Amino acid sequence: MKSKLECIPCLLKQSLNATRMVTDDPVVQEKVLKSVMRVLLDMPLNRSPPSIAHAVYSIVHDITGCDDPYRALKAEYNGVAMEMYPCLKGIVDESEDRLFTAIKLAIAGNIIDFGAHIQFNVRKTIKDTLTREFAINDYPEFVESLEKSENILYLADNAGEVVFDRILIEEINDRANIIYAVKKKPIINDATTDDAIFCGIDSLAEIITTADTPGTILERCDPAFVATYRSADMIISKGQGNYESLSEEAGNIFFMLLAKCPVIAADLGVEIRSAVLKHKSSVKREDSTI
Amino acid sequence: MKSKLECIPCLLKQSLNATRMVTDDPVVQEKVLKSVMRVLLDMPLNRSPPSIAHAVYSIVHDITGCDDPYRALKAEYNGVAMEMYPCLKGIVDESEDRLFTAIKLAIAGNIIDFGAHIQFNVRKTIKDTLTREFAINDYPEFVESLEKSENILYLADNAGEVVFDRILIEEINDRANIIYAVKKKPIINDATTDDAIFCGIDSLAEIITTADTPGTILERCDPAFVATYRSADMIISKGQGNYESLSEEAGNIFFMLLAKCPVIAADLGVEIRSAVLKHKSSVKREDSTI
Repeated sequence: MKSKLECIPCLLKQSLNATRMVTDDPVVQEKVLKSVMRVLLDMPLNRSPPSIAHAVYSIVHDITGCDDPYRALKAEYNGVAMEMYPCLKGIVDESEDRLFTAIKLAIAGNIIDFGAHIQFNVRKTIKDTLTREFAINDYPEFVESLEKSENILYLADNAGEVVFDRILIEEINDRANIIYAVKKKPIINDATTDDAIFCGIDSLAEIITTADTPGTILERCDPAFVATYRSADMIISKGQGNYESLSEEAGNIFFMLLAKCPVIAADLGVEIRSAVLKHKSSVKREDSTI
Repeated sequence: MKSKLECIPCLLKQSLNATRMVTDDPVVQEKVLKSVMRVLLDMPLNRSPPSIAHAVYSIVHDITGCDDPYRALKAEYNGVAMEMYPCLKGIVDESEDRLFTAIKLAIAGNIIDFGAHIQFNVRKTIKDTLTREFAINDYPEFVESLEKSENILYLADNAGEVVFDRILIEEINDRANIIYAVKKKPIINDATTDDAIFCGIDSLAEIITTADTPGTILERCDPAFVATYRSADMIISKGQGNYESLSEEAGNIFFMLLAKCPVIAADLGVEIRSAVLKHKSSVKREDSTI
């Protein structure tokens, strides 16, 4: 998915938010903001939002001297989500369709996102996502694909959200081999290996790393990851960043996300704040350059 | 009030929104956005937000060739608000305190604002504002000042909102001489003389123009307006733009607004979305440079 003009003010705001996690110094904040503006002035918009976001957050890291501005918040949300785990598990146990309920919870967990929205309400989102219709619901295709798949690649999105992914993985890891992909280095609040281990993924799935960019930009990923991606029978892709970077890539992908930004909502053809489970078949595999 | 760093992404977004009111051409939209970025890179933030907004909207007007991007929306909201007039009048007629109810409605009307928020819900805001406590409520000072004032300057904010101002003016124009100040030229969705006449202000108050900038930047206003401002016994200042430009100026000012942006909410020390009736006494009159 290409970036849009409204990504520019959004990324500027994100750079300011991230900088303020590190420092109250207005001189540093202004230096970051103006440096990002200069870079965005020359940035071609045919790049995907995660690709541009990588450049933006690199400036934040370089100028603030902090390569993990959301470290404390990520730890906090890992803790909050882990405390919610028994409750989430209870919701699945009491449901009529365990798998669909686990998918709903995995999507609800996508509300934990410091890039798109600083403020969010996890409990309200869980309630809403459990009761609302999905704007796009390819659950029948998901079930069908799950039955045929031996190797599933699960692309994580954010720290904290990992616990919600765990709920879904626990429903499917007896049917297939799951590989859980996280970021190689901290970027925004994206999940890393440490987050995956803290949230208990390591006993359920193999953990692999993608790259140091938000989303999953295949050109930037380790060859081992790309090989895993190419050989996966089914890919579960969580969140906006993975959708933005993979919506035009080949693969048997199921995108699970909350459409938190108007650009993504428009690209998907749904209302903002919609819950989405969207299947993208591998029609473009032959055209892939990777 | 000085601008803050978060005004930069906000103004960029505003410039894009305004441009999109005029054209769907992405080339023009990008040209506006990048031209605004270049200007903002060198803009000192010790200027007030309306002062910077004036520069931003001038770029929108110059590049699009349209000096009134919100013309159609302003006309629509004037019409909507005029249709609500009998209902608003009924709310005042049935209230225990006509003046305070009229003030509440005048503040509720401040939700009509295409600069700060493209989406808003007028009816919900009226209901909320009638029932909620104000975050700052200097109503006793307002009543006291009203009793002593012969000449009142009423600084308008947005088109449509003018009808809500009319409701308040009808409660006070038998007690004092009211002068209603609007913009000299169209800027964002700020009320102009045409809007004031359409909404029936001309039979209730004298109409005067300020300048072609948002807010009320005294340095940019006509000498006749500045003389009126200086001689007014009481100034009713509607909306964020007027607060941003007058919060450090002299005058017996009553600011009436909804705090729609986090920067203004922080400056006022209130939660975002709060309703505010704030008195600022004329302690700084001696320091004024105008």
